[in-house]
Amino acid sequence: MPQKVRIALDAMGGDHGPSVVVPGAEMALERHPDSTFILFGDQAKIEPLLASRPRLNEACRVVHTDVAVRMDDKPSQALRNGRWKSSMWLAIDAVKKGDADVAISAGNTGALMAMSKFNLRTLPGIERPAIAALWPTLKGSSIVLDLGASIGADAESLVDMAVMGSAMARVLFGLDRPSVGLLNIGAEEVKGLEPVREAGRILREDPPPHIDYIGFVEGDDIGRGKADVVVTEGFAGNIALKTAEGTAKQFADYLRSAISQSIWSKIGYVLARPAFRMLRDKMDPRKSNGGVFLGLNGVVIKSHGGTDPEGFAAAIDMGFRMVRHELLAKIDDTIRKHARDTEAGRAVGGVAS
Amino acid sequence: MPQKVRIALDAMGGDHGPSVVVPGAEMALERHPDSTFILFGDQAKIEPLLASRPRLNEACRVVHTDVAVRMDDKPSQALRNGRWKSSMWLAIDAVKKGDADVAISAGNTGALMAMSKFNLRTLPGIERPAIAALWPTLKGSSIVLDLGASIGADAESLVDMAVMGSAMARVLFGLDRPSVGLLNIGAEEVKGLEPVREAGRILREDPPPHIDYIGFVEGDDIGRGKADVVVTEGFAGNIALKTAEGTAKQFADYLRSAISQSIWSKIGYVLARPAFRMLRDKMDPRKSNGGVFLGLNGVVIKSHGGTDPEGFAAAIDMGFRMVRHELLAKIDDTIRKHARDTEAGRAVGGVAS
Repeated sequence: MPQKVRIALDAMGGDHGPSVVVPGAEMALERHPDSTFILFGDQAKIEPLLASRPRLNEACRVVHTDVAVRMDDKPSQALRNGRWKSSMWLAIDAVKKGDADVAISAGNTGALMAMSKFNLRTLPGIERPAIAALWPTLKGSSIVLDLGASIGADAESLVDMAVMGSAMARVLFGLDRPSVGLLNIGAEEVKGLEPVREAGRILREDPPPHIDYIGFVEGDDIGRGKADVVVTEGFAGNIALKTAEGTAKQFADYLRSAISQSIWSKIGYVLARPAFRMLRDKMDPRKSNGGVFLGLNGVVIKSHGGTDPEGFAAAIDMGFRMVRHELLAKIDDTIRKHARDTEAGRAVGGVAS
Repeated sequence: MPQKVRIALDAMGGDHGPSVVVPGAEMALERHPDSTFILFGDQAKIEPLLASRPRLNEACRVVHTDVAVRMDDKPSQALRNGRWKSSMWLAIDAVKKGDADVAISAGNTGALMAMSKFNLRTLPGIERPAIAALWPTLKGSSIVLDLGASIGADAESLVDMAVMGSAMARVLFGLDRPSVGLLNIGAEEVKGLEPVREAGRILREDPPPHIDYIGFVEGDDIGRGKADVVVTEGFAGNIALKTAEGTAKQFADYLRSAISQSIWSKIGYVLARPAFRMLRDKMDPRKSNGGVFLGLNGVVIKSHGGTDPEGFAAAIDMGFRMVRHELLAKIDDTIRKHARDTEAGRAVGGVAS
């Protein structure tokens, strides 16, 4: 039997703190009994919630701290006030110290990224971390990154993202060579951002292993599931993600108001309820909850701040799978192989010329 | 009675050419009898379609040309092969020469923008043109620009877009001071692109007239209708638009497959059909067809290439309204007032300091 996956939880993160984190952990433990938890936060709030959950209680320990990063703290504030002692910092630090395999927080993204970078540092060969998430598509799911870890990206960063995103796709989708597309715009008058074109050239001419580079994709190709991994810089990626969320909400809203329009449409709704349930299920943002911070010496997962226990459990599942299927080793392996291939290619080129 | 609006149509543009353009013009003429048309293109294809449409036939004249820009021509090719003589060029040129008030084409965006810039030039005070379109929202519609006329934008270009977009909102929504938001990302670790922040500072501290600047908006605020006008540079704008289109398609697909799942859901669908019709209506991309090229010495409208007569008529409607409500004069007026205010402000500041 493989070793248990040790999961560090920031119990104070998110809009609801322990009241979501603890029941979320309980759900995740049911699905993955080979997990253990360390909960960082206010003991007085956490322990009553554990009392009624004997199995979770047995699989976890609580580390008390009074300090919690607030949802509206700026990254600099969070670092100043929360370093060494906040529940968020301690969860990340457990990964750093080797006490845990993954840290999960529903706390604020900026603070979590700043602390993760500060404490874990980036992987050798990676300049900048990225945030990646599952995106529901007509074919199933794709991985999209970067969703806002940083603004702008040079060609090398985009190639790094392709490597990291495809490692994540190997973990989640069980593919050996996931398809990777670079997000670009189709209007013919512009051929796209220079770094995107340059990254395309590198991926075409000198592809890292485990990547099936399929070229540029456009915004509407994401939902179509055209690529297993869609790579973009953080500004456009964040806007794409939020715009898709907004459009989905808009559609759901229209549908609701259409249904409540007449007695006939209400009866129709009742008859078609299982179909609507399926639809809601497909669009359920909780199922794809969990932004993976890629490119760090450790796995950190960001849960949506406003999610419920079900959603938080999905973020834990995500972390569990990243550890169980060795995300970091896969990224590292690809980077090393690519570096070796590139050097070998250069050496051959050197001899030939 | 006001003067008729004179509309130049590229009859050969789009996937279907005259077979969509001519019936589209007929529909638009019914709605706006105070229009006249010049159709540029292959006489042999256009005239048979006019024969059965006596009212349109009377309100239009045909200018023959053998040359048509292809949908896959690059802008440079289109300019090389289509300048002076293609149906697209001639439609734009009719605006330049004062024979028409607006040019409309379903031809390729890159070629249309290149020819429009080349022939019409930008308005005094405007550096770069932008493409703006209606975006359906929960509150009705908003205007979003730039959707891909150029990549990247400095602060001044973003402020220009705010001016042009709000002029378009005055025309379409009848508002005196439309609300304007700058599209940005919310992740706290990044405060957004520097030009976006700088544009925000200018709009806050030195707002042009007729603009109610409401600050930064995020991707999901677009569909929510938080701002009448959403301003962004063309790369992110194009990706946001395409992503929203993709998500809407995805939702419609899910809904369709949910409904066909069982006999009960099919019966439910039949009962709720008027509701679904309302829903389809709300999401109908034909209704918001028509990208307006802003910032040129003339009004040019880009119709979706694959649209049907109904959609093409919507693009004509858009052009009609831009002319009837004097879009260009409104843009020009705002720019002049703003320049005067800014100078006056500087003079006062100079005296005070």
